[in-house]
Amino acid sequence: MNPNIPTRVKLIDVGPRDGLQNEKQPVPADVKIGLVHRLQDAGLKEIEVTSYVSPKWVPQMADNHEVMAGIARRSDVRYSVLTPNLKGWEAAVLDKPDEIVVFGAASEAFSQKNINCSIAESIERFAPVVEAARAAGIQVRGAMSCTVGCPYEGEVAPERVAYLAGLLKGIGVQRVDVADTIGVGTPRKVQRAIEATLKHFGIDDVSGHFHDTYGQALSNTLAALELGVWNFQSSVAGLGGCPYAKGATGNVATEDLVYMLHGMGIETGIDLDRLVDAGAYISDFLGRKPQSRVAVALLNKRAG
Amino acid sequence: MNPNIPTRVKLIDVGPRDGLQNEKQPVPADVKIGLVHRLQDAGLKEIEVTSYVSPKWVPQMADNHEVMAGIARRSDVRYSVLTPNLKGWEAAVLDKPDEIVVFGAASEAFSQKNINCSIAESIERFAPVVEAARAAGIQVRGAMSCTVGCPYEGEVAPERVAYLAGLLKGIGVQRVDVADTIGVGTPRKVQRAIEATLKHFGIDDVSGHFHDTYGQALSNTLAALELGVWNFQSSVAGLGGCPYAKGATGNVATEDLVYMLHGMGIETGIDLDRLVDAGAYISDFLGRKPQSRVAVALLNKRAG
Repeated sequence: MNPNIPTRVKLIDVGPRDGLQNEKQPVPADVKIGLVHRLQDAGLKEIEVTSYVSPKWVPQMADNHEVMAGIARRSDVRYSVLTPNLKGWEAAVLDKPDEIVVFGAASEAFSQKNINCSIAESIERFAPVVEAARAAGIQVRGAMSCTVGCPYEGEVAPERVAYLAGLLKGIGVQRVDVADTIGVGTPRKVQRAIEATLKHFGIDDVSGHFHDTYGQALSNTLAALELGVWNFQSSVAGLGGCPYAKGATGNVATEDLVYMLHGMGIETGIDLDRLVDAGAYISDFLGRKPQSRVAVALLNKRAG
Repeated sequence: MNPNIPTRVKLIDVGPRDGLQNEKQPVPADVKIGLVHRLQDAGLKEIEVTSYVSPKWVPQMADNHEVMAGIARRSDVRYSVLTPNLKGWEAAVLDKPDEIVVFGAASEAFSQKNINCSIAESIERFAPVVEAARAAGIQVRGAMSCTVGCPYEGEVAPERVAYLAGLLKGIGVQRVDVADTIGVGTPRKVQRAIEATLKHFGIDDVSGHFHDTYGQALSNTLAALELGVWNFQSSVAGLGGCPYAKGATGNVATEDLVYMLHGMGIETGIDLDRLVDAGAYISDFLGRKPQSRVAVALLNKRAG
């Protein structure tokens, strides 16, 4: 097998933020805190906790301060938060995140529909946020959505990904996610999006973020591993369905990813059993099964 | 990406046989025939139709003759059937299959529990079947189950796979499936099982058969493609749950596999939309959603 494949992978669990943000039923802050605690107990070293967006748009994240204040933080865990603009940043910095995330799109149409401005305008909006964060010594990650396909434009060319990556690099963003937001990517397309990103960022600063809507997330992960990518985002219990396809899967489940990586002899530092517990905890609260084939199989096995 | 990856792949849909055999509710012969017709209309060139096993053990396949007789057969489609012993062969040959399948296991414990004899004994039992089929000019495939893991023994060593492959080759079996019957395989383990098989069979005579119980089937397929494997087995709508884990997924869905292959620019000759229709047809009959992420996403999209 390809010698580029890393021996160690770092996972960023985005469940508490990206996973829960579209949940219709309110999730109390203490349940979110309980989830973060279980994730760090399972060995996660990076957790995307919440966002500082207007509660008018994302009511589920209105408790951002309460959640951040309630976490028994560990020095070896990085807690990141989404800050779409200067107002969000000003609220976020009071809660001392280790990293902030700005959220851009490789597709013009998606940028317009999702954050209501062009890609270039979004970069202008992020620039002062990035500057302030860097001045405060806080790391900045740029989420690049729709790097393979867009619900409005269809296929997205690698050149568009390179363009966005270049803009983010230009304003001081330190690392980026290559996200397949609607899960339409397949191994070669995902590799091209990553290669486009590598024109502006080093391999250590690029993470893969794949959705499982079409069941492709793990093969896309394998394809990314073969390019040497060793940072990946995923969501415990597959939290965060796909808002573009009712009843369909969104974020790849952290459990499924960990199972593959461990099976390949790749170290993650994560205890799969405790991770399954964390996923069961939030899934029980939400009143549904985990959206993770590994979790379902292992929970069935435990039940005997 | 790896230059071994083929430009064309042939899929063998095992849904009508392997998929339906464990269904509790009776599926009438005309529904099975309707499924086979829809699969060939979608472009499948190999279909595993039924088995000739005692109806005492597999009541769902008791209509084997009726199903085989009812298919409007095409000269460019290969119809295969499972024949576990000489009695099965004698019944099967009357229905003129293009290929018969004998079903062995790489794990001793699985062989004992599943077919009630040792691996060596199973080979003795298959030998006259293979001989008769070869004499009649009918092709013989050997299914090798538990090539990565076994529900009773745990991990299965590649040497066990090579041992079984050698025995099958020795009695005249022409091609073999490397099956991950309980879906515990991950890319490197699957590659080792395939490499072990390649000691006895050429690359054109080896097919991959992966289960999605732990969501690993597509990444395992990608790993197999990288070794040059270009024959794969799958089941439309993911028919055939995993009998070893209640409620868990079994066979990888043909739809998910086709989506990945087409996305990679690999030709299959299959029309994905018609394949989704075939899966919806049998899933509607069974009163459940297709166990295919692609089918669910595309059916949601159609519903708008």
